[in-house]
Amino acid sequence: MAASSTPNPDRRSERARQAILDAALELCGEQSYAGLTMEGIAKRAGVGKQTIYRWWPSKAAILLEALEERGRSTLDFPDTGNLEADLRTQMTQVAQAFLSPTFAAYSKGLIAAAQSDPAIAQAVVTSIIQPRVTLCIERLQKAQQAGEIRPDLDLADVVELLYAPLYYRLLLHTRPVSPTQVDTILSLVLAGVSSDKQP
Amino acid sequence: MAASSTPNPDRRSERARQAILDAALELCGEQSYAGLTMEGIAKRAGVGKQTIYRWWPSKAAILLEALEERGRSTLDFPDTGNLEADLRTQMTQVAQAFLSPTFAAYSKGLIAAAQSDPAIAQAVVTSIIQPRVTLCIERLQKAQQAGEIRPDLDLADVVELLYAPLYYRLLLHTRPVSPTQVDTILSLVLAGVSSDKQP
Repeated sequence: MAASSTPNPDRRSERARQAILDAALELCGEQSYAGLTMEGIAKRAGVGKQTIYRWWPSKAAILLEALEERGRSTLDFPDTGNLEADLRTQMTQVAQAFLSPTFAAYSKGLIAAAQSDPAIAQAVVTSIIQPRVTLCIERLQKAQQAGEIRPDLDLADVVELLYAPLYYRLLLHTRPVSPTQVDTILSLVLAGVSSDKQP
Repeated sequence: MAASSTPNPDRRSERARQAILDAALELCGEQSYAGLTMEGIAKRAGVGKQTIYRWWPSKAAILLEALEERGRSTLDFPDTGNLEADLRTQMTQVAQAFLSPTFAAYSKGLIAAAQSDPAIAQAVVTSIIQPRVTLCIERLQKAQQAGEIRPDLDLADVVELLYAPLYYRLLLHTRPVSPTQVDTILSLVLAGVSSDKQP
């Protein structure tokens, strides 16, 4: 009974933490990463600026935590036994994320910030990119063991070839990312890596 | 005789313009794009800040002009009749440029700035990316007409697949760009696009 009348500081903190992550994601989607400030996040989340600075050193750190925590669903790499279908499912999920204005805004903002801040660059690789690359390599390994992919290939190179064109369009703004792009990439890359093709 | 004693304002302006482009490139290489300021460029070039603002609205505009003017050499796409060798020559030139600290600093800086400024994004595509993509497409078209590349392919997609992995490593900092990477990309992509492979 006492528990319900005495505020639980941990629970209160967790609520504030979630409000701050929500605020950062919302504001980044509304006004781009460059316009995002610690003050703005504090105001939207209804907390003091000191609360934010107690937990995170920068807006990049807040967004990284939000991405890491909210982006867990894209950490499931499908394995139906059909490599092309599984890659299409996962890559389409990434393309759809890049098509979402909010997700695109914070992906582009973090990658932009990474160009002048090696700590952010390192954190993006460690907490966002690398875990996903590893899961894709594991899926490709199964295909390679099943004889569907040329045995001479370094699978990290194959992952790069599959995903780089999506990042290229996101960051260089040459053409919009699209689900059609996923089909194109898959048809070109799988023709080159399948084990019935000459090395 | 009079000409040598009367200063020629056009010639003086051109000298100042070149000094400003040099200063912008040098400073960007020394202290990253984020640290670059109009004040710093003016000081290094030995001109007034107003001179710079008369010609360019922003540091991004100066760097774009420098890149456009000084990067002309990478606008020659080789045509020796051997597609793989020609692609290797041109892509290795791009990889070497990305390996140069100065060129890498201003490429990353401009692309970072493009994420929050649509005008810079548009200028990067129009003045830097698109002219080079067009030349690569023209080289691939000759190969397609010669029957070396599958006739069903959209060559803009092939260009994207060839160059995107270089930009991916430059911008995401997963692994360093390298000439070896060019060999890897060529071996994977050409295996998929050659006309002796199944579509």
